[in-house]
Amino acid sequence: MSTPAQVQRPLVDLYSDTITLPTPEMRAFMAEAPLGDEQKGEDPSVNELTAMAAELLGKEAAVFLPSGTMCNEIALAVHSRPGDEVLTDRTAHIINYEVGGPAALSGINVRALDGERGVFTAEQFRAAIRPASRYAPVTSGVVIEQTSNAGGGTIWPLERIEEITAIARDHGMWAHMDGARLLNASVASGIEPRVYAAHFDSVFVDLSKGLGAPVGGILAGTQDFIDQAWRLKQRWGGAMRQAGVIASAGVYALRNHVSRLAEDHENARALAASLAAIEGLEIRPEHVDTNIVLFDVAATGLTAAEFGKRTHERFGVRVSVFGPTTVRVVTHIDVTAAQIPVAVRAIAAVTGEALAGR
Amino acid sequence: MSTPAQVQRPLVDLYSDTITLPTPEMRAFMAEAPLGDEQKGEDPSVNELTAMAAELLGKEAAVFLPSGTMCNEIALAVHSRPGDEVLTDRTAHIINYEVGGPAALSGINVRALDGERGVFTAEQFRAAIRPASRYAPVTSGVVIEQTSNAGGGTIWPLERIEEITAIARDHGMWAHMDGARLLNASVASGIEPRVYAAHFDSVFVDLSKGLGAPVGGILAGTQDFIDQAWRLKQRWGGAMRQAGVIASAGVYALRNHVSRLAEDHENARALAASLAAIEGLEIRPEHVDTNIVLFDVAATGLTAAEFGKRTHERFGVRVSVFGPTTVRVVTHIDVTAAQIPVAVRAIAAVTGEALAGR
Amino acid sequence: MSTPAQVQRPLVDLYSDTITLPTPEMRAFMAEAPLGDEQKGEDPSVNELTAMAAELLGKEAAVFLPSGTMCNEIALAVHSRPGDEVLTDRTAHIINYEVGGPAALSGINVRALDGERGVFTAEQFRAAIRPASRYAPVTSGVVIEQTSNAGGGTIWPLERIEEITAIARDHGMWAHMDGARLLNASVASGIEPRVYAAHFDSVFVDLSKGLGAPVGGILAGTQDFIDQAWRLKQRWGGAMRQAGVIASAGVYALRNHVSRLAEDHENARALAASLAAIEGLEIRPEHVDTNIVLFDVAATGLTAAEFGKRTHERFGVRVSVFGPTTVRVVTHIDVTAAQIPVAVRAIAAVTGEALAGR
Amino acid sequence: MSTPAQVQRPLVDLYSDTITLPTPEMRAFMAEAPLGDEQKGEDPSVNELTAMAAELLGKEAAVFLPSGTMCNEIALAVHSRPGDEVLTDRTAHIINYEVGGPAALSGINVRALDGERGVFTAEQFRAAIRPASRYAPVTSGVVIEQTSNAGGGTIWPLERIEEITAIARDHGMWAHMDGARLLNASVASGIEPRVYAAHFDSVFVDLSKGLGAPVGGILAGTQDFIDQAWRLKQRWGGAMRQAGVIASAGVYALRNHVSRLAEDHENARALAASLAAIEGLEIRPEHVDTNIVLFDVAATGLTAAEFGKRTHERFGVRVSVFGPTTVRVVTHIDVTAAQIPVAVRAIAAVTGEALAGR
Repeated sequence: MSTPAQVQRPLVDLYSDTITLPTPEMRAFMAEAPLGDEQKGEDPSVNELTAMAAELLGKEAAVFLPSGTMCNEIALAVHSRPGDEVLTDRTAHIINYEVGGPAALSGINVRALDGERGVFTAEQFRAAIRPASRYAPVTSGVVIEQTSNAGGGTIWPLERIEEITAIARDHGMWAHMDGARLLNASVASGIEPRVYAAHFDSVFVDLSKGLGAPVGGILAGTQDFIDQAWRLKQRWGGAMRQAGVIASAGVYALRNHVSRLAEDHENARALAASLAAIEGLEIRPEHVDTNIVLFDVAATGLTAAEFGKRTHERFGVRVSVFGPTTVRVVTHIDVTAAQIPVAVRAIAAVTGEALAGR
Repeated sequence: MSTPAQVQRPLVDLYSDTITLPTPEMRAFMAEAPLGDEQKGEDPSVNELTAMAAELLGKEAAVFLPSGTMCNEIALAVHSRPGDEVLTDRTAHIINYEVGGPAALSGINVRALDGERGVFTAEQFRAAIRPASRYAPVTSGVVIEQTSNAGGGTIWPLERIEEITAIARDHGMWAHMDGARLLNASVASGIEPRVYAAHFDSVFVDLSKGLGAPVGGILAGTQDFIDQAWRLKQRWGGAMRQAGVIASAGVYALRNHVSRLAEDHENARALAASLAAIEGLEIRPEHVDTNIVLFDVAATGLTAAEFGKRTHERFGVRVSVFGPTTVRVVTHIDVTAAQIPVAVRAIAAVTGEALAGR
Repeated sequence: MSTPAQVQRPLVDLYSDTITLPTPEMRAFMAEAPLGDEQKGEDPSVNELTAMAAELLGKEAAVFLPSGTMCNEIALAVHSRPGDEVLTDRTAHIINYEVGGPAALSGINVRALDGERGVFTAEQFRAAIRPASRYAPVTSGVVIEQTSNAGGGTIWPLERIEEITAIARDHGMWAHMDGARLLNASVASGIEPRVYAAHFDSVFVDLSKGLGAPVGGILAGTQDFIDQAWRLKQRWGGAMRQAGVIASAGVYALRNHVSRLAEDHENARALAASLAAIEGLEIRPEHVDTNIVLFDVAATGLTAAEFGKRTHERFGVRVSVFGPTTVRVVTHIDVTAAQIPVAVRAIAAVTGEALAGR
Repeated sequence: MSTPAQVQRPLVDLYSDTITLPTPEMRAFMAEAPLGDEQKGEDPSVNELTAMAAELLGKEAAVFLPSGTMCNEIALAVHSRPGDEVLTDRTAHIINYEVGGPAALSGINVRALDGERGVFTAEQFRAAIRPASRYAPVTSGVVIEQTSNAGGGTIWPLERIEEITAIARDHGMWAHMDGARLLNASVASGIEPRVYAAHFDSVFVDLSKGLGAPVGGILAGTQDFIDQAWRLKQRWGGAMRQAGVIASAGVYALRNHVSRLAEDHENARALAASLAAIEGLEIRPEHVDTNIVLFDVAATGLTAAEFGKRTHERFGVRVSVFGPTTVRVVTHIDVTAAQIPVAVRAIAAVTGEALAGR
């Protein structure tokens, strides 16, 4: 490509696990992948990926989609009727990062529960289910985000999932798992993805987060659910053609990049432990379940945005803003153990200077 | 990839220009493409592709989307309000191949005009615009499909476009071009894409048809239009991450695969001329404007589906069914001039046997 | 009411059967009607009306709604899923007079069939049903308007209804009757409303057209259908409180105003016969099935709007504009037999002067 | 009406101010009201009512609709775009009693703020407005319910309204007042309706609550807003014909039933004071701002449903269930001062027996 205007990449990029680049091995694999028209079921790489994903998640079938957002939004649309109400945590991706999709695409209202670090209780859940009424919306389903991104990478305990989905079933409600980072939860807890997934009517796993694939997510469920999802995939414009060029990256990632998520978790714990030693930051290392670390910079007198600007511009360390004074850092395949001390030094420096200047 | 269940590919695949495989050169280019996160505007390949497309189409800005269907549906959603009515030809893709998207996604009704081979007249158009009324829907826009696929690859003449879009502007209506095969029209007519596009508020070009890229389309318009389209891209799940892995194929295609569309047109004309000599087929070679050929097999006593099954299973020549007795064949980058006589012989044989057996 | 700005009423108002005023007897009946809260099922007048309507139409249950439009739109919403396609005649009320409701409220596209005076054939219908496909919308239902208003008050023959609804059932499609003027059809044909209605999953009858009630329509179907309709009635704001104040007018009308529709039909036929004798008008008296008469004024050199303005302003005879040169006149409870010659003289005068002035 | 199955009416009906019956004087007035076709703007009673309402609320124009729910839902639909987010209190009618309308009809998500008795603070409001983002929904508007029904008839203080709507304007947000009981607030506070309404883009007042009319609400705003509302009224089926038969009740009520709301407030205060003296009930008489009284029966060991069943079946005193152990009683035109002690005795008896039986 003739000298495109290259964006300067940060030295240490803790912005998100969504910014990972495919490895050379993954790109080589992609370049050789067998291809066909996925709309006709003729793309071997897509077929292999969906078969692998269905197996991994213990579901009858799966569909490959261009993004995790489409996985979530299609699941909501298939499960619900316009006017329904859906319960989830107030931090959920479907509420905060999908541009109002549930109401706009499916006519459903998402009712926010006030959980702890993204995880609500069975009591909260039960209390929020509306009794049948001619006036009230029907509380038709529940969405659980495993791990909770905005909760700080929190793992939903299996028992909690069991309790909540049992209540849902008792009330004739469907349950969907936003498993964007389900594999992080699974690697960290030692519980198989299919064990978590067994409690849900549908589940999605993202390929372009910790797994390091460039594009796409997988949505799994019963064959009938997937047949309906395919119609929406087609209608919404998620149906591609020789999609094996990207699905193959998912195949490679599921084979080669799952167990290595443990390294990201170790790096996140190491980072959190070091940050905890920096005066002026508020952080709870014991809350770091997986690859996400949240900390508060209020004591520095800086906003999270100002803080992040300084670490980025002065030290090449990119973080993300998660609240007025909340900073999020995320470890992933492009962050090495050696980079952790570099990031810590940058954060310590910005913190120290800010405190000195107050 | 360990022995995936390969789908047997036809010998001559005239099914559609959507089934093209990326060439080795294209795949090599894709494998080297610079990447970043397109949602943050940091993917150099996506940025290059959208800049090229905006230039090609003479528009302020463009957005890369996973499919042509999403290009069309997002354009409709941005331009209209729920309850609006949109005019287009009865053969249009948005009516027949987008799973009811306009009503489901934007709340708009598409009113079909009864054109000639996919092209309606200014008189038909003007007569269909509803006067303002408290009872009637607002006729808010018009969609023109260049070329008309189901019309048989028909090129919309520039003068017709000028007439119709002028009437639309006079009535305060927006105009969108479904330019899935605009580049075919352009190569065949010698009229620049931007000259056609100048009459429309938005225009889309497909990368995964004659251009031979595996995935995606480009939607172009004003910067404000594209900003709104980006919000819908995000909401509907069309926002990808390191989308340069596929956008790069579009870059390659726009550089290398445009002028060669002329070969497809030549092959289509040659094919049509030969088919016209076969007794039992009804075909109008003078209607072949680009790379699509329609013919009728009613005289053989076969349905189009039966006819296509025979050419495929017995001769490895795949065609598509376009009506009870209408067959469509499409030329594209994976169909060589040498394959044309092979296809003709297969079609002649199936026709001959059917006639003999009546 | 202290001197409200009274609108001047025409001498002979042939504008529509929607403009009828309740008779003194009806108003007296309304003023005495027992009342309650209809949302709690406690309004005796509403309960009586819905029971009468269900009986009349041979359905399990019925719901009272503030308008015929809401009856149609709720039926569509209950029967269909977003993205579905519905077939009806191109002249249908749901296409032309409901402000784009089907797409806006239910996400469905209405596909127009090109019938004869509002009545399409079984062949047209069958040909328009789409085969199952991943790309096409699902053709899920059919709407028949009895009588066809814009067709000129045409009665759908029972045999045609039987044919078409049988095909619909064979294809798993639902069928709804827009019976705004079903009672006109029934009185004219001698066929009981329930006999027509038996072929449909749902049917609506308007109370504020020929029946002369001021407000409302009745939608009937199975109990389950009506339960769903009630939820939409509540959501869309059609649920009223002491609705017996208006439902009672419907009770009165069903008891007292049905058989008298025959007078309207006689008046319409008399009017048509007289108009046929006026040079310069194009009219087909044999097409007058019920209370609607259409005629064309093209030969006068006037538009329908100009024509109507003259009859109204100069002679106090109000008609309605139904096309560029098409005028519609409608007979109803407020039009007496004695008024017919008055109307004819006015129309003849306007026609004669226009011809003279050409 | 021939002996319809009359529903037995309670002796004292504190269920809601929605169950009021029109007075004989109101019915007589309705029976004489001048009528016309409201869709053509020709109904004098409707015209008078909307003129009175626009004047009362200080707005350019108003529209008469069959229910308060339609008033709210149309306002939301006109003000917003699909995918928007709207802020209101968690107790709001639009969240809990409109069957999921905002999402189903307008594609908007309603985000619940956790106010105090239905009234949230400016700080809560400001904190909930989302900053502009490609990922987040647009927080486009705010709805304030005056008085707060589920808050217990709480009056929103004018200063709070000023603060919040000023913040909304600063953020380019629209503001709508659900003024179902605005006139109660106004009579109680001595602040003119138009003074409250001045801070809102649109406001609705219900006619079938304390005002005692049988059917309908009034929605007011700018002329342009009302023009758009009319299109939705037509599309959703809220457009009636000779609607003066019910609008006239609104005219009568606005003339004769506003100042008498003070009696309802006095009755409610008297009721609350008496209930506060009953051991076993939890009630805060100082929270009774208008005509609604909430009390808790948890100490009796009964659920609210059981409690209400006993007062109704044994004493003919009907109340409504507002939570597991929360009972609501509402005073209105059909509840006389003399009935208050009757209700108190019934409630005291049920409470006493329940406590005795524990």
